[in-house]
Amino acid sequence: MSIVIHIITPIITKGIRTLDDVAEYASDEVEFRHSLLDKGPSSIECEYDEALAVPDTIKKAIEAEKAGADAIVIDCMGDPGVKAVREVVSIPVLGPAETSMHVAAMLGQKFTVVTVLDGVVPMIHNLAKVYGITEKMASIRVINLPVLEIEKNFEKAQRMLAQASLAAIKEDDADVIILGCTGFLGCVEKITELLMSNGRDIPVIDPIPLTVMAAVTLVKTGLRHSKKTYAPPRDKVIVGY
Amino acid sequence: MSIVIHIITPIITKGIRTLDDVAEYASDEVEFRHSLLDKGPSSIECEYDEALAVPDTIKKAIEAEKAGADAIVIDCMGDPGVKAVREVVSIPVLGPAETSMHVAAMLGQKFTVVTVLDGVVPMIHNLAKVYGITEKMASIRVINLPVLEIEKNFEKAQRMLAQASLAAIKEDDADVIILGCTGFLGCVEKITELLMSNGRDIPVIDPIPLTVMAAVTLVKTGLRHSKKTYAPPRDKVIVGY
Amino acid sequence: MSIVIHIITPIITKGIRTLDDVAEYASDEVEFRHSLLDKGPSSIECEYDEALAVPDTIKKAIEAEKAGADAIVIDCMGDPGVKAVREVVSIPVLGPAETSMHVAAMLGQKFTVVTVLDGVVPMIHNLAKVYGITEKMASIRVINLPVLEIEKNFEKAQRMLAQASLAAIKEDDADVIILGCTGFLGCVEKITELLMSNGRDIPVIDPIPLTVMAAVTLVKTGLRHSKKTYAPPRDKVIVGY
Amino acid sequence: MSIVIHIITPIITKGIRTLDDVAEYASDEVEFRHSLLDKGPSSIECEYDEALAVPDTIKKAIEAEKAGADAIVIDCMGDPGVKAVREVVSIPVLGPAETSMHVAAMLGQKFTVVTVLDGVVPMIHNLAKVYGITEKMASIRVINLPVLEIEKNFEKAQRMLAQASLAAIKEDDADVIILGCTGFLGCVEKITELLMSNGRDIPVIDPIPLTVMAAVTLVKTGLRHSKKTYAPPRDKVIVGY
Amino acid sequence: MSIVIHIITPIITKGIRTLDDVAEYASDEVEFRHSLLDKGPSSIECEYDEALAVPDTIKKAIEAEKAGADAIVIDCMGDPGVKAVREVVSIPVLGPAETSMHVAAMLGQKFTVVTVLDGVVPMIHNLAKVYGITEKMASIRVINLPVLEIEKNFEKAQRMLAQASLAAIKEDDADVIILGCTGFLGCVEKITELLMSNGRDIPVIDPIPLTVMAAVTLVKTGLRHSKKTYAPPRDKVIVGY
Amino acid sequence: MSIVIHIITPIITKGIRTLDDVAEYASDEVEFRHSLLDKGPSSIECEYDEALAVPDTIKKAIEAEKAGADAIVIDCMGDPGVKAVREVVSIPVLGPAETSMHVAAMLGQKFTVVTVLDGVVPMIHNLAKVYGITEKMASIRVINLPVLEIEKNFEKAQRMLAQASLAAIKEDDADVIILGCTGFLGCVEKITELLMSNGRDIPVIDPIPLTVMAAVTLVKTGLRHSKKTYAPPRDKVIVGY
Repeated sequence: MSIVIHIITPIITKGIRTLDDVAEYASDEVEFRHSLLDKGPSSIECEYDEALAVPDTIKKAIEAEKAGADAIVIDCMGDPGVKAVREVVSIPVLGPAETSMHVAAMLGQKFTVVTVLDGVVPMIHNLAKVYGITEKMASIRVINLPVLEIEKNFEKAQRMLAQASLAAIKEDDADVIILGCTGFLGCVEKITELLMSNGRDIPVIDPIPLTVMAAVTLVKTGLRHSKKTYAPPRDKVIVGY
Repeated sequence: MSIVIHIITPIITKGIRTLDDVAEYASDEVEFRHSLLDKGPSSIECEYDEALAVPDTIKKAIEAEKAGADAIVIDCMGDPGVKAVREVVSIPVLGPAETSMHVAAMLGQKFTVVTVLDGVVPMIHNLAKVYGITEKMASIRVINLPVLEIEKNFEKAQRMLAQASLAAIKEDDADVIILGCTGFLGCVEKITELLMSNGRDIPVIDPIPLTVMAAVTLVKTGLRHSKKTYAPPRDKVIVGY
Repeated sequence: MSIVIHIITPIITKGIRTLDDVAEYASDEVEFRHSLLDKGPSSIECEYDEALAVPDTIKKAIEAEKAGADAIVIDCMGDPGVKAVREVVSIPVLGPAETSMHVAAMLGQKFTVVTVLDGVVPMIHNLAKVYGITEKMASIRVINLPVLEIEKNFEKAQRMLAQASLAAIKEDDADVIILGCTGFLGCVEKITELLMSNGRDIPVIDPIPLTVMAAVTLVKTGLRHSKKTYAPPRDKVIVGY
Repeated sequence: MSIVIHIITPIITKGIRTLDDVAEYASDEVEFRHSLLDKGPSSIECEYDEALAVPDTIKKAIEAEKAGADAIVIDCMGDPGVKAVREVVSIPVLGPAETSMHVAAMLGQKFTVVTVLDGVVPMIHNLAKVYGITEKMASIRVINLPVLEIEKNFEKAQRMLAQASLAAIKEDDADVIILGCTGFLGCVEKITELLMSNGRDIPVIDPIPLTVMAAVTLVKTGLRHSKKTYAPPRDKVIVGY
Repeated sequence: MSIVIHIITPIITKGIRTLDDVAEYASDEVEFRHSLLDKGPSSIECEYDEALAVPDTIKKAIEAEKAGADAIVIDCMGDPGVKAVREVVSIPVLGPAETSMHVAAMLGQKFTVVTVLDGVVPMIHNLAKVYGITEKMASIRVINLPVLEIEKNFEKAQRMLAQASLAAIKEDDADVIILGCTGFLGCVEKITELLMSNGRDIPVIDPIPLTVMAAVTLVKTGLRHSKKTYAPPRDKVIVGY
Repeated sequence: MSIVIHIITPIITKGIRTLDDVAEYASDEVEFRHSLLDKGPSSIECEYDEALAVPDTIKKAIEAEKAGADAIVIDCMGDPGVKAVREVVSIPVLGPAETSMHVAAMLGQKFTVVTVLDGVVPMIHNLAKVYGITEKMASIRVINLPVLEIEKNFEKAQRMLAQASLAAIKEDDADVIILGCTGFLGCVEKITELLMSNGRDIPVIDPIPLTVMAAVTLVKTGLRHSKKTYAPPRDKVIVGY
C-alpha cells in the first residue's frame, strides 16, 4: 500500500498546479493527490489574501485526512494555515517555507529567499522568526513579478531569479538559494545553469519537490507533529464554517 | 469632534464585552464603538479558532473605518487578523498582545504573561518572536481555565491569576505581569492587592484599557502603521468573501 | 483635576524647549510643566555629557514629584538618568528613546533612527540592546549636525533628515523612522511630505509628543514602573549631592 | 539503479551498528552500505574522542564516494567531521544531530535532546549554536550511561530515556524529543509507549532512520551542500595522512 | 620604567580598598596607584548610587592620566563611568564586570555572577547585554548582603558565596563563577576549597586581580579603546563640574 | 621561577613562526617555548586542514604540559583542537581567535576580522557563534592571499590588510580590527599608520602577542579552564594514536 501525500494549493485558480509537477516523485510506493480551494483568493501575496485562504484550506485538509492521506503539503510559501491544520488532523502537515528554510540551513552557511513582490517580504521575515531560523537567513530578494504573471513570463522569471540569486551570493553572502514562491516550480535548472556559468556551485531549492519528499520521509519514519504544540481544538460553537 | 476608537471582539459570543468595560476612558474627546462577529468561533483558544475568526474580523474592520473610526482595537490576546486588517484600512490597528508586551517591556526588566490554557502558550511565544520582544519575556503561565468559564468563576479566576503572578515573580524573576486574555478585564485590582500584601509592588497590565488608550495616543500624535510593511492588497478575484 | 506631565530637559541651555512645543497636547485634562538643569552640559552628544547631566536631572525629578507631577518625561534621546530617576520617585518616568523604539516596533517591520552625530551611534545601539528591541532596528543614520546647530539650520536639518530617511527606507529596508534627537521636534511634517512625494507612506516619530502622550496613557491606566526592577535606593552616606 | 546511502560509524568498535538497523528503509530503490574506522576511538563521548575519529572518517568518506555512494551519513550525534567531509566529496553529507535538530524544530515548538553523559552537553549546545537552531532547543538531559554500556543495559536505557523525556516535557516545556546518541537506535517504541501512557502524544526522533531518509530525499531532489560554504581544500603538503 | 595601573574605587568610603589588595601583582615592571572619590556615595548598589559616583570618577581619571597612568581600572562591578572615562582619556580604561564576563566566557560554557543584593541584578543583566555576552551567562545569584557589611561578615560572606556558587553549578548549569562585587576580593580561595570538596573543579574569578592584569596586558601589547566608539567630547559650556 | 608559555603552531611548515616573534614579551618572569607538528598540513585554510592538524596538536600539548608548561597557546586563528586539548591537560589553553574576539569586544562597539581567504569565512563565523560573541562582530573581510604566500608578499599583505580595514570601518561600521591569521604577525604597525593617516584612531589586534600575554594573565591570577566544561576523557580503547 502506497504512501499518500495530499497537496493543497490554497487558492482558487485552476491550472497553476497539476500532479504532473510532482510526477517524477510518484512511484509504487508514493501516490500524490491534490486539492484546490472553492473559497478564497486567486493568489496569495499578502496577509489579507492568506487570511481568506485559510478557512477552506482547513476544510480541504480534514477531507484529505478522511480520504486516507498520510501527510498534507500546503502549496504556498506563506505556509498559510499550516499550524491550524496541524491542530485538526493527526497526520504530518508540511509547509514549503518551513521545510525549505530548515533544509537550506543544513546545506550551507546562510540562505537567501528570492521571491515575487515586496509585499511578501515582512511575511517571510516573520515566518523565519517563528521557525527560529533567522540566524541562517542572509536576505530576501524580490523580482517584482506578481504570482499570476509567472507562468506567462516563465523565461523572464527564470532570468530574473537567476540574476537575483547571483546578486544574493555576491552582495549578501548567500550560500544557498530558496525559490520563494511555489509558482517558481521548474525554474531551478535554468538558475543553476546561470550560477554555474558564473562559477557558483550552490544549491537552489525548489520548495514543492523538497517538501513532498520530506513528507514521505516523515511518514516512513513514523513521525508527526507534536500534539503538545498542536492540541486538538476544544469543542465549541462556531458559526458560518 | 471626538476620537472614535472601534473595538472588535473577534468572537460571536454576546455579552462578554460591553462598552461599560471601557466607559471610564470615554470622554468628550474619546468615543468607543464595538462590534462582535457574525461568523466565527464562540471563543479563541487555538490557531484553528483564530483562523475562523479572521475573515469576519477583517469585514468588521472595513465597516468600522467606513463608519468613521479613527483607530481599531482587536479585542483578543492572540491579536487575530491584526496584520491583515492593517493592509485593508488606513487607520491605526492595535492588538492588545503587541501593545501590552511593548509597554510591559518599558515598565520593568522582564514580563510574564498569565493566561488561560496550555494551548495558547505556543501562540503567545510566536507573537513575542514576531514582535521582536522575546528578550524581555520571563515566562508564560497558565491557570487552566477556558475563556468562557472566566466570567462564571470570576473570583476564582482572580485568585488563580494572583497566585500565578506571584509564582512568576518568585520563580521566573518576572518584574511585570500581563493578563494574557482580554476576558480577564477587571481582575487587576484584586491581583495587585494580593501582590502588595506579599510585598510585591509591580505593575499588572490589563490589556484592553491600555490598548484603547494607546490607540488614542497614536491618533492624537498622527501616527499610523507603515504602508511599506502593510501595503494594500493587490486587486484580484476572491471567491466566497 | 488634571494630569500633570513634567518634562525635564536635561541641559542648561535656555530656549531650546518651551511648553509651546507640546501646547497642542495640553487640555483641561492634561497640564505640562518643565524644568531645565542648573548644573550640567549645554547639550548631550556623548557618554561624558550624559554623565554630567544625570545628577541634576535626578534632583529636578524629585522636586517635580514633590510638586505634584503625575509622570516625568526626560527630554533627550539618550534617556539620561531614566533608570536612576525611576528608583527615586514613585510615578512613571519615560524616556523618549525607549518609548519611540517600542512604538516604532509596533508600527512596522523595522525602524531606523536618524540622528545628529556619529558620537551618539554607539549610545543608541546600546539603548536598543538594553530595551531588548535590537531585532526591530534596521539602522541608525546620522546627518552630522550638532544639537545646538539644529535650530539655527532648521530648514537644512529637515532636508537632511528627509534625505537620510529616504536612504534608510531604500538601502536599509526601514519601515518606520524615529527622529533621533528631541531637538528635531517639529520636523516631522516636512519629512513626511518629502517621503510622500517619493511614494513612501511611512510613519515618522517625533519622540517628545509621542512620549508625553504615552505618559498620559500610563497615568490614566494606573501603571507605573516595577519596584522590583527599580527598588528605592538604600539609605547611605552620600557626599556632594 | 538504486540510491546508495553510505553510513560511516566513526568508531572502531565492531557490532554496535549493522545494516540490519536500517534494513526496513532499504528497497529496490535504496541501498545502504557501511564502514567502521580502522583508526580512532572505541566510542565518542568528548571533544578528544571526536578529534581522533575525524581523520579516518574523512578517509572512509572519500573511499565511499569513489565506490559509488550517492550520499554519506556520519553515524554519531557529535556530527564529527561532517563539515570537513563536505569539503572533500561532492555528494551530500549528513550528520544526525544537524538533521534531527532541524526536523525536530519543524515538529513542535521546542525540542529536548536526551543523551548519554554530562561530557557531551557542551558539545551539543555548540552544535545547536553553529546550526543556528538554539531558539528551538528547550534543554539537554543526560541519563549518565556511557555509550558502550547502552547495549548491555538496553531495557534500563529505554526506561531512563523515557523518564528523562517525561521530565523534559513537564519541567522544560519540551514538545519534541531527540535521542541524543545514535546508539539509542531502536528505543523509540518503548519511550513513546511510556509517554503515551502518561497522556503525552509527542514525537520522539530516532536520528539514524531519519537521517538516512533525509539523505535519500536530498539525492532524489538533486540537492547537495553549497560549494561556497564547503569549498574543496587547496592543494598543499600534508604529512602523515 | 614601570607600567602604572591606576585603580579608582568610585566611592567615598575609606579603607575598603588598599594597594595591599593587589600587592602580589606589583613588581619592578608594574606599579599600582589608587584614588577614592571626594564626592559620591559610600557604596554602589543601584542606578542612583552609580549616577552620583560617575562625575567624580571622571575627574579622578583625568587626574590619573595627567599624573602618568598607563591604564585605569574602575573598581566596581557596575563599571560606573567606564564609557564616559574612555571618551576623556587616551589610555585603556577597564571595568571589572566587562573584563570578568569576557574572560569567564573563555574559561567555560556558561558563567554565573554571584553578587550582593537583588537591586543590582537588572544592572548586571543590562551590562551583559551591552557587552554582547548574554549567551554565555547562566544566571545571576544574590546572597543578600549589602556591600558595606561584607568586611564585617567576611567568613559568612565566603560561606554564602560558596553555597550560591554550588547552587549555580547544580541548578543553573554554570561552568564558571564570577564574584559580582569587587568587595569580595580575597574570597576566592575559600569558595574554591568548598567547591573542590564537592567535586567541582571550576574557575572562580576575583574581578580586581584579573582586571588589573588585563590592563597590564593591554598596555604591553599597545592596545587601547577605539576612538571611533569613544570619541573625545565636543567642546561646550558645562556648568557645575 | 618563570612562567612558561608553550606555543604550538599546528602545521608542519618550518620557519613561519619562531620565538623571535614574541621575544619582546619574554622576561625574567616569562619564558616562551614552541612546537611544530610532525604530522599534519603545511597550512590551515579549511575544515579539512584543521581536522588533520588536531591529533598531533593534542600530542604536542600533552608533551608540553609534561615538560612543565604553565599555559598553552595554539597558534592558528581557527583555534584548532583548543577544546580537545583543554580536556587532556590541566593548564590554561588559549586560542588566538577566542582571545582576540573577546578583547576586541572590550575595545569598541563592533569588530571586523580581516583574513586570508573566502574559505575560512564560515569557520570564523562559526567560532564567533560558539564563543557567544556574534553580536559584537561587524563583518569578516578577506584579502585573497593564501597563508603560505603572506611572508613572500609581506608589504603587499600589509597594504591589503590596511585597505580592507579601512573599508570595514567605513562600510561595515567596524570600531576594532582583528588580524584574522596568525601569519599576519608584525603587520599591525603599518596598518595602524595607514588608518591614522586616514584619521582613524582604532585598535588593530595582532592575535599572538595578545594571546600569549592573556595566557600570562591567567597563570598569574591562578585561573584555568572549567573542568565541568572540559572534563578529562573517559578511559577507552583508541587505535592508531
